[in-house]
Amino acid sequence: MTTDAPVPRPSLDDPAYRQGVIELLGLLGAGEYLAFERLVSEAALAPSLSQRVRVADIAQGELGHHRLIRDRLLEMGVDPDEAMSAFLLPLESYHRMTAPSDWLEGLVKAYVGDSISTDFYREIGAVLDERTAVLVAEVCSELGQTAVVIAEVRAAIARDPRLAGRLALWGRRLLGEMLSQAQSVAAQHDGLAALILSEPVTSQIDLVGLLERLTAAHVARMTALGLAA
Amino acid sequence: MTTDAPVPRPSLDDPAYRQGVIELLGLLGAGEYLAFERLVSEAALAPSLSQRVRVADIAQGELGHHRLIRDRLLEMGVDPDEAMSAFLLPLESYHRMTAPSDWLEGLVKAYVGDSISTDFYREIGAVLDERTAVLVAEVCSELGQTAVVIAEVRAAIARDPRLAGRLALWGRRLLGEMLSQAQSVAAQHDGLAALILSEPVTSQIDLVGLLERLTAAHVARMTALGLAA
Repeated sequence: MTTDAPVPRPSLDDPAYRQGVIELLGLLGAGEYLAFERLVSEAALAPSLSQRVRVADIAQGELGHHRLIRDRLLEMGVDPDEAMSAFLLPLESYHRMTAPSDWLEGLVKAYVGDSISTDFYREIGAVLDERTAVLVAEVCSELGQTAVVIAEVRAAIARDPRLAGRLALWGRRLLGEMLSQAQSVAAQHDGLAALILSEPVTSQIDLVGLLERLTAAHVARMTALGLAA
Repeated sequence: MTTDAPVPRPSLDDPAYRQGVIELLGLLGAGEYLAFERLVSEAALAPSLSQRVRVADIAQGELGHHRLIRDRLLEMGVDPDEAMSAFLLPLESYHRMTAPSDWLEGLVKAYVGDSISTDFYREIGAVLDERTAVLVAEVCSELGQTAVVIAEVRAAIARDPRLAGRLALWGRRLLGEMLSQAQSVAAQHDGLAALILSEPVTSQIDLVGLLERLTAAHVARMTALGLAA
Protein backbone atom coordinates (compact mmCIF):
# COMPACT_ATOMS: atom_id res chain seq x y z
CA MET A 1 0.00 0.00 0.00
CA THR A 2 2.82 2.45 0.74
CA THR A 3 5.87 3.05 -1.39
CA ASP A 4 9.35 2.72 0.12
CA ALA A 5 10.24 6.42 0.08
CA PRO A 6 7.99 8.36 2.49
CA VAL A 7 5.52 10.50 0.57
CA PRO A 8 5.10 14.01 2.02
CA ARG A 9 1.64 14.52 3.49
CA PRO A 10 -0.64 16.87 1.58
CA SER A 11 -1.21 20.34 3.05
CA LEU A 12 -4.45 22.13 3.88
CA ASP A 13 -2.81 25.26 2.40
CA ASP A 14 -3.56 23.77 -1.02
CA PRO A 15 -7.09 25.06 -1.75
CA ALA A 16 -8.12 22.07 -3.89
CA TYR A 17 -6.92 19.61 -1.25
CA ARG A 18 -8.63 21.63 1.48
CA GLN A 19 -11.91 21.55 -0.44
CA GLY A 20 -11.60 17.77 -0.80
CA VAL A 21 -11.04 17.38 2.95
CA ILE A 22 -14.04 19.60 3.72
CA GLU A 23 -16.21 17.40 1.51
CA LEU A 24 -14.79 14.21 3.03
CA LEU A 25 -15.47 15.50 6.56
CA GLY A 26 -18.93 16.68 5.48
CA LEU A 27 -19.74 13.21 4.18
CA LEU A 28 -18.31 11.50 7.24
CA GLY A 29 -20.07 13.88 9.65
CA ALA A 30 -23.44 13.49 7.95
CA GLY A 31 -22.89 9.73 7.89
CA GLU A 32 -22.16 9.59 11.61
CA TYR A 33 -25.22 11.65 12.47
CA LEU A 34 -27.51 9.50 10.35
CA ALA A 35 -25.90 6.34 11.71
CA PHE A 36 -26.85 7.61 15.18
CA GLU A 37 -30.43 8.40 14.19
CA ARG A 38 -30.90 5.13 12.34
CA LEU A 39 -29.37 2.98 15.05
CA VAL A 40 -31.69 4.49 17.63
CA SER A 41 -34.73 3.83 15.48
CA GLU A 42 -33.49 0.30 14.81
CA ALA A 43 -33.02 -0.20 18.56
CA ALA A 44 -36.81 -0.23 18.81
CA LEU A 45 -36.74 -3.58 16.99
CA ALA A 46 -34.75 -5.22 19.82
CA PRO A 47 -36.52 -8.01 21.68
CA SER A 48 -35.62 -6.65 25.13
CA LEU A 49 -35.10 -3.29 26.76
CA SER A 50 -31.53 -4.16 27.75
CA GLN A 51 -30.66 -4.84 24.10
CA ARG A 52 -32.34 -1.59 23.09
CA VAL A 53 -30.20 0.32 25.54
CA ARG A 54 -27.05 -1.46 24.36
CA VAL A 55 -27.76 -0.32 20.80
CA ALA A 56 -28.48 3.18 22.10
CA ASP A 57 -25.04 3.19 23.73
CA ILE A 58 -23.39 2.35 20.41
CA ALA A 59 -25.50 5.03 18.73
CA GLN A 60 -24.31 7.58 21.26
CA GLY A 61 -20.76 6.82 20.19
CA GLU A 62 -21.72 7.73 16.61
CA LEU A 63 -23.14 11.03 17.80
CA GLY A 64 -19.87 11.66 19.64
CA HIS A 65 -17.98 11.05 16.39
CA HIS A 66 -20.32 13.43 14.60
CA ARG A 67 -19.43 16.10 17.15
CA LEU A 68 -15.69 15.61 16.67
CA ILE A 69 -16.11 16.33 12.96
CA ARG A 70 -18.42 19.27 13.61
CA ASP A 71 -15.81 20.80 15.95
CA ARG A 72 -13.01 20.27 13.44
CA LEU A 73 -14.96 21.91 10.60
CA LEU A 74 -15.69 24.91 12.83
CA GLU A 75 -11.99 25.11 13.65
CA MET A 76 -11.27 25.14 9.90
CA GLY A 77 -13.65 28.10 9.57
CA VAL A 78 -16.28 26.02 7.77
CA ASP A 79 -20.02 25.89 8.56
CA PRO A 80 -20.45 22.22 9.54
CA ASP A 81 -24.14 22.14 8.67
CA GLU A 82 -23.49 23.44 5.20
CA ALA A 83 -20.62 21.00 4.64
CA MET A 84 -22.66 18.05 5.89
CA SER A 85 -26.12 18.85 4.53
CA ALA A 86 -24.98 18.27 0.95
CA PHE A 87 -24.58 14.59 1.80
CA LEU A 88 -27.79 13.95 3.70
CA LEU A 89 -29.83 13.01 0.64
CA PRO A 90 -27.71 10.13 -0.73
CA LEU A 91 -27.06 8.81 2.79
CA GLU A 92 -30.75 8.91 3.69
CA SER A 93 -31.47 7.17 0.44
CA TYR A 94 -29.04 4.38 1.43
CA HIS A 95 -30.79 4.03 4.78
CA ARG A 96 -34.23 3.99 3.18
CA MET A 97 -33.15 1.31 0.72
CA THR A 98 -31.73 -0.78 3.57
CA ALA A 99 -34.34 -0.28 6.29
CA PRO A 100 -34.11 -3.51 8.33
CA SER A 101 -37.34 -5.43 8.66
CA ASP A 102 -36.36 -6.98 11.97
CA TRP A 103 -33.83 -6.94 14.78
CA LEU A 104 -31.35 -9.35 13.15
CA GLU A 105 -31.28 -7.40 9.90
CA GLY A 106 -30.68 -4.28 12.00
CA LEU A 107 -27.76 -5.94 13.78
CA VAL A 108 -26.19 -7.15 10.55
CA LYS A 109 -26.58 -3.68 9.07
CA ALA A 110 -25.02 -1.96 12.10
CA TYR A 111 -21.95 -4.18 11.81
CA VAL A 112 -21.59 -5.20 8.16
CA GLY A 113 -23.03 -2.10 6.51
CA ASP A 114 -21.22 0.47 8.65
CA SER A 115 -17.92 -1.40 8.42
CA ILE A 116 -17.80 -1.16 4.62
CA SER A 117 -17.74 2.63 4.70
CA THR A 118 -15.49 2.68 7.75
CA ASP A 119 -12.89 0.54 5.93
CA PHE A 120 -12.98 2.96 3.03
CA TYR A 121 -12.59 6.10 5.16
CA ARG A 122 -9.86 4.51 7.23
CA GLU A 123 -7.76 3.63 4.19
CA ILE A 124 -8.13 7.04 2.51
CA GLY A 125 -7.78 8.91 5.80
CA ALA A 126 -4.42 7.33 6.58
CA VAL A 127 -2.64 9.14 3.72
CA LEU A 128 -4.16 12.59 4.32
CA ASP A 129 -2.65 15.43 6.36
CA GLU A 130 -1.86 14.47 9.95
CA ARG A 131 -4.77 16.29 11.62
CA THR A 132 -7.31 14.86 9.21
CA ALA A 133 -5.74 11.40 9.41
CA VAL A 134 -5.95 11.34 13.22
CA LEU A 135 -9.55 12.59 13.17
CA VAL A 136 -10.69 10.04 10.57
CA ALA A 137 -9.01 7.20 12.51
CA GLU A 138 -10.77 8.29 15.69
CA VAL A 139 -14.15 8.62 13.99
CA CYS A 140 -13.75 5.19 12.39
CA SER A 141 -12.90 3.51 15.68
CA GLU A 142 -14.94 0.52 16.73
CA LEU A 143 -17.83 1.28 19.08
CA GLY A 144 -18.37 -2.18 20.46
CA GLN A 145 -20.91 -3.33 17.90
CA THR A 146 -18.68 -6.13 16.58
CA ALA A 147 -18.78 -8.26 19.70
CA VAL A 148 -22.49 -7.64 20.32
CA VAL A 149 -23.53 -8.37 16.76
CA ILE A 150 -21.42 -11.48 16.18
CA ALA A 151 -22.61 -13.13 19.39
CA GLU A 152 -26.30 -12.32 18.78
CA VAL A 153 -26.39 -13.27 15.11
CA ARG A 154 -24.53 -16.55 15.64
CA ALA A 155 -26.83 -17.46 18.52
CA ALA A 156 -29.92 -16.68 16.43
CA ILE A 157 -28.68 -18.84 13.55
CA ALA A 158 -27.88 -21.66 15.97
CA ARG A 159 -31.50 -21.53 17.15
CA ASP A 160 -32.92 -21.31 13.64
CA PRO A 161 -30.48 -22.27 10.85
CA ARG A 162 -32.92 -21.13 8.14
CA LEU A 163 -32.11 -17.53 9.09
CA ALA A 164 -28.65 -17.89 7.53
CA GLY A 165 -29.94 -17.75 3.96
CA ARG A 166 -32.04 -14.64 4.42
CA LEU A 167 -29.30 -12.79 6.34
CA ALA A 168 -26.67 -13.75 3.75
CA LEU A 169 -28.82 -12.16 1.03
CA TRP A 170 -29.31 -9.14 3.26
CA GLY A 171 -25.54 -8.73 3.68
CA ARG A 172 -25.09 -8.84 -0.10
CA ARG A 173 -27.77 -6.21 -0.50
CA LEU A 174 -26.07 -3.92 2.03
CA LEU A 175 -22.80 -4.18 0.09
CA GLY A 176 -24.53 -3.49 -3.20
CA GLU A 177 -26.49 -0.47 -1.95
CA MET A 178 -23.42 0.93 -0.21
CA LEU A 179 -21.26 0.75 -3.35
CA SER A 180 -24.03 2.17 -5.50
CA GLN A 181 -24.53 5.16 -3.17
CA ALA A 182 -20.75 5.67 -2.92
CA GLN A 183 -20.51 5.93 -6.70
CA SER A 184 -23.30 8.48 -6.89
CA VAL A 185 -21.76 10.54 -4.06
CA ALA A 186 -18.37 10.59 -5.82
CA ALA A 187 -20.02 11.53 -9.13
CA GLN A 188 -21.86 14.47 -7.57
CA HIS A 189 -19.07 15.91 -5.44
CA ASP A 190 -16.12 17.01 -7.50
CA GLY A 191 -13.93 18.04 -4.58
CA LEU A 192 -14.26 14.64 -2.96
CA ALA A 193 -13.68 12.77 -6.23
CA ALA A 194 -10.61 14.93 -6.92
CA LEU A 195 -9.27 14.20 -3.43
CA ILE A 196 -9.60 10.44 -3.93
CA LEU A 197 -7.88 10.70 -7.32
CA SER A 198 -5.20 13.14 -6.12
CA GLU A 199 -1.51 12.25 -6.24
CA PRO A 200 -1.01 11.91 -2.45
CA VAL A 201 -3.78 9.30 -2.41
CA THR A 202 -3.12 7.44 -5.66
CA SER A 203 0.64 7.25 -5.05
CA GLN A 204 -0.01 5.35 -1.82
CA ILE A 205 -3.29 3.56 -2.36
CA ASP A 206 -4.00 1.14 -5.15
CA LEU A 207 -7.55 2.27 -5.89
CA VAL A 208 -8.33 -0.69 -8.11
CA GLY A 209 -7.26 -2.97 -5.29
CA LEU A 210 -9.27 -0.92 -2.75
CA LEU A 211 -12.56 -2.32 -3.98
CA GLU A 212 -11.15 -5.84 -3.70
CA ARG A 213 -9.92 -5.15 -0.17
CA LEU A 214 -13.29 -3.71 0.88
CA THR A 215 -15.02 -6.76 -0.55
CA ALA A 216 -12.57 -9.17 1.11
CA ALA A 217 -13.10 -7.51 4.49
CA HIS A 218 -16.86 -7.72 3.92
CA VAL A 219 -16.58 -11.45 3.19
CA ALA A 220 -14.52 -11.93 6.36
CA ARG A 221 -17.19 -10.20 8.45
CA MET A 222 -19.99 -12.22 6.90
CA THR A 223 -18.01 -15.39 7.65
CA ALA A 224 -17.53 -14.27 11.26
CA LEU A 225 -21.32 -13.99 11.50
CA GLY A 226 -21.69 -17.53 10.15
CA LEU A 227 -23.09 -16.25 6.85
CA ALA A 228 -22.18 -16.95 3.24
CA ALA A 229 -21.01 -13.70 1.64
CA MET B 1 -48.44 21.34 50.14
CA THR B 2 -46.50 20.39 53.28
CA THR B 3 -47.83 20.35 56.83
CA ASP B 4 -46.14 22.34 59.58
CA ALA B 5 -44.77 19.38 61.56
CA PRO B 6 -42.10 17.57 59.53
CA VAL B 7 -43.36 14.19 58.36
CA PRO B 8 -40.76 11.40 58.67
CA ARG B 9 -39.64 10.13 55.29
CA PRO B 10 -40.79 6.64 54.36
CA SER B 11 -38.23 3.84 54.52
CA LEU B 12 -37.20 1.34 51.87
CA ASP B 13 -37.22 -1.27 54.66
CA ASP B 14 -41.01 -1.28 54.36
CA PRO B 15 -41.63 -3.93 51.65
CA ALA B 16 -44.82 -2.33 50.32
CA TYR B 17 -43.14 1.08 50.07
CA ARG B 18 -40.07 -0.48 48.43
CA GLN B 19 -42.28 -2.19 45.84
CA GLY B 20 -43.96 1.13 45.09
CA VAL B 21 -40.58 2.82 44.59
CA ILE B 22 -39.42 0.01 42.30
CA GLU B 23 -42.53 0.48 40.16
CA LEU B 24 -42.13 4.26 40.15
CA LEU B 25 -38.49 3.96 39.08
CA GLY B 26 -39.46 1.32 36.50
CA LEU B 27 -42.02 3.69 35.01
CA LEU B 28 -39.67 6.64 35.09
CA GLY B 29 -36.77 4.63 33.61
CA ALA B 30 -38.89 3.23 30.79
CA GLY B 31 -40.25 6.72 30.17
CA GLU B 32 -36.80 8.24 29.91
CA TYR B 33 -35.61 5.55 27.50
CA LEU B 34 -38.62 5.98 25.24
CA ALA B 35 -38.33 9.76 25.44
CA PHE B 36 -34.78 9.33 24.14
CA GLU B 37 -35.83 7.03 21.30
CA ARG B 38 -38.80 9.18 20.31
CA LEU B 39 -36.90 12.45 20.44
CA VAL B 40 -34.25 11.05 18.14
CA SER B 41 -36.83 9.86 15.64
CA GLU B 42 -38.60 13.23 15.88
CA ALA B 43 -35.27 14.97 15.27
CA ALA B 44 -35.49 13.68 11.70
CA LEU B 45 -38.40 16.13 11.20
CA ALA B 46 -36.15 19.13 11.85
CA PRO B 47 -35.67 21.52 8.93
CA SER B 48 -31.89 21.69 9.35
CA LEU B 49 -29.08 19.40 10.45
CA SER B 50 -28.05 21.78 13.23
CA GLN B 51 -31.56 21.59 14.71
CA ARG B 52 -31.52 17.81 14.38
CA VAL B 53 -28.30 17.66 16.35
CA ARG B 54 -29.67 20.03 18.99
CA VAL B 55 -32.62 17.69 19.54
CA ALA B 56 -30.23 14.72 19.62
CA ASP B 57 -28.30 16.47 22.41
CA ILE B 58 -31.47 16.81 24.47
CA ALA B 59 -32.29 13.17 23.75
CA GLN B 60 -28.87 12.12 25.00
CA GLY B 61 -29.72 13.76 28.31
CA GLU B 62 -32.81 11.53 28.56
CA LEU B 63 -30.66 8.46 27.95
CA GLY B 64 -28.34 9.66 30.73
CA HIS B 65 -31.35 9.92 33.07
CA HIS B 66 -32.40 6.43 32.05
CA ARG B 67 -28.96 5.17 33.06
CA LEU B 68 -29.15 6.83 36.48
CA ILE B 69 -32.36 4.92 37.19
CA ARG B 70 -30.95 1.69 35.78
CA ASP B 71 -27.93 2.00 38.09
CA ARG B 72 -30.10 2.73 41.12
CA LEU B 73 -32.35 -0.28 40.50
CA LEU B 74 -29.27 -2.51 40.17
CA GLU B 75 -28.01 -1.09 43.45
CA MET B 76 -31.36 -2.00 45.04
CA GLY B 77 -30.87 -5.57 43.81
CA VAL B 78 -33.61 -5.24 41.20
CA ASP B 79 -33.35 -6.24 37.52
CA PRO B 80 -33.87 -2.88 35.78
CA ASP B 81 -35.14 -4.41 32.56
CA GLU B 82 -37.78 -6.38 34.38
CA ALA B 83 -38.85 -3.35 36.42
CA MET B 84 -39.02 -1.12 33.36
CA SER B 85 -40.39 -3.49 30.73
CA ALA B 86 -43.76 -3.67 32.46
CA PHE B 87 -44.30 -0.02 31.52
CA LEU B 88 -43.16 -0.05 27.91
CA LEU B 89 -46.56 -0.89 26.47
CA PRO B 90 -48.62 2.02 27.88
CA LEU B 91 -45.79 4.46 27.25
CA GLU B 92 -45.35 3.30 23.67
CA SER B 93 -49.08 3.58 23.24
CA TYR B 94 -48.90 7.23 24.41
CA HIS B 95 -46.14 7.92 21.89
CA ARG B 96 -48.03 6.21 19.09
CA MET B 97 -51.17 8.21 19.86
CA THR B 98 -49.13 11.43 19.87
CA ALA B 99 -46.75 10.87 16.96
CA PRO B 100 -46.02 14.41 15.71
CA SER B 101 -46.82 15.01 12.06
CA ASP B 102 -44.21 17.75 11.72
CA TRP B 103 -41.29 19.49 13.39
CA LEU B 104 -43.39 22.02 15.35
CA GLU B 105 -45.67 19.34 16.78
CA GLY B 106 -42.52 17.45 17.77
CA LEU B 107 -41.15 20.53 19.54
CA VAL B 108 -44.39 21.18 21.40
CA LYS B 109 -44.52 17.53 22.44
CA ALA B 110 -40.90 17.52 23.67
CA TYR B 111 -41.63 20.50 25.90
CA VAL B 112 -45.32 20.43 26.82
CA GLY B 113 -45.86 16.66 26.80
CA ASP B 114 -42.74 15.71 28.72
CA SER B 115 -43.26 18.49 31.26
CA ILE B 116 -46.65 17.18 32.36
CA SER B 117 -45.19 13.89 33.53
CA THR B 118 -42.08 15.59 34.91
CA ASP B 119 -44.23 17.86 37.07
CA PHE B 120 -46.03 14.82 38.42
CA TYR B 121 -42.87 12.86 39.22
CA ARG B 122 -41.23 15.89 40.77
CA GLU B 123 -44.10 16.50 43.17
CA ILE B 124 -44.44 12.85 44.25
CA GLY B 125 -40.67 12.34 44.37
CA ALA B 126 -40.14 15.20 46.81
CA VAL B 127 -41.90 13.37 49.67
CA LEU B 128 -40.27 9.97 49.18
CA ASP B 129 -37.16 8.62 50.93
CA GLU B 130 -34.11 10.84 50.52
CA ARG B 131 -32.25 8.68 47.96
CA THR B 132 -35.30 8.29 45.77
CA ALA B 133 -36.19 11.97 46.13
CA VAL B 134 -32.73 13.10 45.00
CA LEU B 135 -32.74 10.68 42.07
CA VAL B 136 -36.21 11.72 40.88
CA ALA B 137 -35.27 15.41 41.11
CA GLU B 138 -32.13 14.77 39.06
CA VAL B 139 -33.99 12.73 36.44
CA CYS B 140 -36.67 15.42 36.15
CA SER B 141 -34.15 18.20 35.62
CA GLU B 142 -34.50 20.41 32.61
CA LEU B 143 -32.41 19.39 29.60
CA GLY B 144 -32.47 22.65 27.74
CA GLN B 145 -35.57 21.96 25.67
CA THR B 146 -37.55 24.84 27.19
CA ALA B 147 -35.45 27.63 25.71
CA VAL B 148 -35.11 25.93 22.33
CA VAL B 149 -38.79 25.11 22.00
CA ILE B 150 -40.22 28.45 23.16
CA ALA B 151 -38.00 30.44 20.79
CA GLU B 152 -38.69 28.20 17.78
CA VAL B 153 -42.44 27.88 18.28
CA ARG B 154 -42.94 31.61 18.88
CA ALA B 155 -40.89 32.42 15.80
CA ALA B 156 -42.91 29.98 13.69
CA ILE B 157 -46.21 31.47 14.86
CA ALA B 158 -44.92 34.98 14.17
CA ARG B 159 -44.19 33.88 10.58
CA ASP B 160 -47.54 32.10 10.17
CA PRO B 161 -50.17 33.02 12.79
CA ARG B 162 -52.53 30.29 11.54
CA LEU B 163 -50.25 27.71 13.16
CA ALA B 164 -51.41 28.81 16.61
CA GLY B 165 -54.80 27.14 16.32
CA ARG B 166 -53.47 23.77 15.21
CA LEU B 167 -50.71 23.74 17.83
CA ALA B 168 -53.14 24.77 20.59
CA LEU B 169 -55.31 21.74 19.73
CA TRP B 170 -52.19 19.58 19.65
CA GLY B 171 -51.23 20.72 23.18
CA ARG B 172 -54.70 19.84 24.45
CA ARG B 173 -54.42 16.42 22.85
CA LEU B 174 -51.05 15.83 24.52
CA LEU B 175 -52.55 16.65 27.92
CA GLY B 176 -55.55 14.39 27.30
CA GLU B 177 -53.49 11.41 26.11
CA MET B 178 -51.02 11.82 28.95
CA LEU B 179 -53.74 11.82 31.63
CA SER B 180 -55.52 8.90 30.03
CA GLN B 181 -52.33 6.79 29.91
CA ALA B 182 -51.46 7.80 33.48
CA GLN B 183 -54.82 6.51 34.69
CA SER B 184 -54.39 3.19 32.93
CA VAL B 185 -50.85 2.80 34.30
CA ALA B 186 -52.05 3.46 37.85
CA ALA B 187 -54.94 1.02 37.39
CA GLN B 188 -52.64 -1.78 36.24
CA HIS B 189 -49.81 -1.35 38.72
CA ASP B 190 -50.96 -1.89 42.28
CA GLY B 191 -47.64 -1.08 43.92
CA LEU B 192 -47.44 2.27 42.19
CA ALA B 193 -51.06 3.12 42.94
CA ALA B 194 -50.53 2.14 46.59
CA LEU B 195 -47.44 4.34 46.78
CA ILE B 196 -49.31 7.36 45.45
CA LEU B 197 -52.13 6.74 47.92
CA SER B 198 -49.81 5.93 50.85
CA GLU B 199 -49.82 8.00 54.03
CA PRO B 200 -46.39 9.66 53.47
CA VAL B 201 -47.65 10.96 50.13
CA THR B 202 -51.24 11.85 50.97
CA SER B 203 -50.29 13.56 54.21
CA GLN B 204 -48.10 15.99 52.28
CA ILE B 205 -49.65 16.21 48.85
CA ASP B 206 -53.20 17.24 48.11
CA LEU B 207 -53.87 14.70 45.36
CA VAL B 208 -57.10 16.35 44.29
CA GLY B 209 -55.22 19.61 43.92
CA LEU B 210 -52.37 17.84 42.06
CA LEU B 211 -54.39 17.49 38.89
CA GLU B 212 -55.25 21.19 39.07
CA ARG B 213 -51.61 22.11 39.58
CA LEU B 214 -50.50 19.95 36.65
CA THR B 215 -53.15 21.56 34.47
CA ALA B 216 -52.23 25.07 35.60
CA ALA B 217 -48.56 24.45 34.82
CA HIS B 218 -49.59 23.09 31.43
CA VAL B 219 -51.61 26.24 30.73
CA ALA B 220 -48.64 28.39 31.73
CA ARG B 221 -46.37 26.53 29.29
CA MET B 222 -48.88 26.80 26.47
CA THR B 223 -49.12 30.53 27.17
CA ALA B 224 -45.32 30.84 27.08
CA LEU B 225 -45.45 29.28 23.61
CA GLY B 226 -48.05 31.84 22.53
CA LEU B 227 -50.77 29.21 22.41
CA ALA B 228 -54.28 29.06 23.90
CA ALA B 229 -54.41 26.14 26.34
